Amino acid sequence: MTADPFETAALIAVDWGTSRCRAMLLDRTGAILAEAESGDGIAALGGQGHEEAFDRVVAGWPDRPAIMAGMIGSRQGWREAAYVTVPTSLDALTAGLLRFETSEHRPLAIVPGLVLRSEARDGDVIRGEETQLVGLMEKEPDFEGLAILPGTHSKWAAVRAGEITSFQTFMTGEMFELLAKKSFLRHSVSESADDLASSPDFELAVRRSVEAELPFLAAVFSVRVRQLLNGVSGDDNLAYLSGLVIGGEIAAARKIGLRKAGEAVRIIGSRSLARAYLKAFHILGEDAETLDGTDLVRAGLVKLARANGML
Amino acid sequence: MTADPFETAALIAVDWGTSRCRAMLLDRTGAILAEAESGDGIAALGGQGHEEAFDRVVAGWPDRPAIMAGMIGSRQGWREAAYVTVPTSLDALTAGLLRFETSEHRPLAIVPGLVLRSEARDGDVIRGEETQLVGLMEKEPDFEGLAILPGTHSKWAAVRAGEITSFQTFMTGEMFELLAKKSFLRHSVSESADDLASSPDFELAVRRSVEAELPFLAAVFSVRVRQLLNGVSGDDNLAYLSGLVIGGEIAAARKIGLRKAGEAVRIIGSRSLARAYLKAFHILGEDAETLDGTDLVRAGLVKLARANGML
Repeated sequence: MTADPFETAALIAVDWGTSRCRAMLLDRTGAILAEAESGDGIAALGGQGHEEAFDRVVAGWPDRPAIMAGMIGSRQGWREAAYVTVPTSLDALTAGLLRFETSEHRPLAIVPGLVLRSEARDGDVIRGEETQLVGLMEKEPDFEGLAILPGTHSKWAAVRAGEITSFQTFMTGEMFELLAKKSFLRHSVSESADDLASSPDFELAVRRSVEAELPFLAAVFSVRVRQLLNGVSGDDNLAYLSGLVIGGEIAAARKIGLRKAGEAVRIIGSRSLARAYLKAFHILGEDAETLDGTDLVRAGLVKLARANGML
Repeated sequence: MTADPFETAALIAVDWGTSRCRAMLLDRTGAILAEAESGDGIAALGGQGHEEAFDRVVAGWPDRPAIMAGMIGSRQGWREAAYVTVPTSLDALTAGLLRFETSEHRPLAIVPGLVLRSEARDGDVIRGEETQLVGLMEKEPDFEGLAILPGTHSKWAAVRAGEITSFQTFMTGEMFELLAKKSFLRHSVSESADDLASSPDFELAVRRSVEAELPFLAAVFSVRVRQLLNGVSGDDNLAYLSGLVIGGEIAAARKIGLRKAGEAVRIIGSRSLARAYLKAFHILGEDAETLDGTDLVRAGLVKLARANGML
């Protein structure tokens, strides 16, 4: 008789966003026994069929409690998990977990998003990234500083004394895509290029944006001018545009004072994008470290499941 | 026998841009005898057939010399009129006119665009707007200050002592369209709304962008947040987004020092867009005046034709 490979399974941890549903079967220590994913993101599901989509992803796995983070807790998700207001601690986040049972009585918890209330700039919301922040705080309990989660909508979050104290969304990835693919500038940049951040034009754009404080809106047309007047290649110009949006993000974050001078920086995300941000910080003579996002989601979900008695 | 209505015709003045070709038959004083236009813009023509397109527009008009401004002088136009470098005077612009004859020996002149060379931000180019600036200098010979030509690619130009001294392009109109129609924010704004600039949300966005110096990249996601958290309507949010891009443009222009403190401002363009910019200046407690763009194109073409001995 073969030993049951899932004998030690204790928890199903799910990262369920707009475009993907990623599930992990974990043992009591948080180690991965199995992984599965599907394209049944919140957008594809259109507000229904979440339980069936979940059952499909975990088919063949033993019946264990599940904890989920991401857009699955939004209004278009399975059930809406109300935002928790920052500053917030792990305890407040745990108390904000939305708990219910599936129709087959499987215990389920959805991690709430975070909301920032601000008179000066209307506030902000996060959903999914809070779990990576918990993962960061679990792996580095004494961390104080700034976590950057680059992406379509890049998030900066301040972590101090075991709390998530503030955050800010920048539409950096989307801005880059819009300008490179849908704007007039698309004629002046390549469709794609490898390792943009290693180009001298990336560095030039970062320095202009942050050190020279060239405003983004005054800088962006230069992508066209560089090609027209200076014959800059499409690859170099794409790197320049990338430097303008990433540098512009760093400059804007400085301006709103999200990070205290000298505070540590952790960049959380996919390898190539996190490396581009790391490069930008190095160009500016600042230190930063990169961390794997997937790993932090798991760590965060495990931490919240433990805090909530599910594990 | 009927008198020839075109007996006094002396010049054909043409504003020939990317999407439209607009021709005016003028007498010696610059008064309009007839107007005609077509959709044969530079983009539609695809680099050929300019003479035939011109002949179609002026069909039935007497054979007179023609002067043209706009993208017709670009690489994709009829013939390329090399950029003139700023600072530039009317004399330098006149000397830069590209003169040739059509295959039927009609004298023709194309107004050159302007180029700005800049180490700090690569430079910039204008093509078409220089003619409106000449029109402004013709109508107000003593004007010193800033001319703003709002649009898809908004242009700011400094005019001092009879010269165009500097200018800057902002992709404001295109940025607004991209964000309102193609980005994630499209779910948070109306498709269109009347009189955006009269909304208190337009004012709020202008004040935040210019007075509070909230960076554009840090402000733009709030369009989503305002709808999600504060229930701001699509119309008000579109007004807010409009205030962010126009306010962002004004803030960026301040930052790069295009305008000296207290200098006069003329806003040149279509009624509704020019009014929105005027409103923004009034919100900021500053004076400005609007001028009709079409009128200035004609005045500029007449002035250049005279300077060149065509009229």
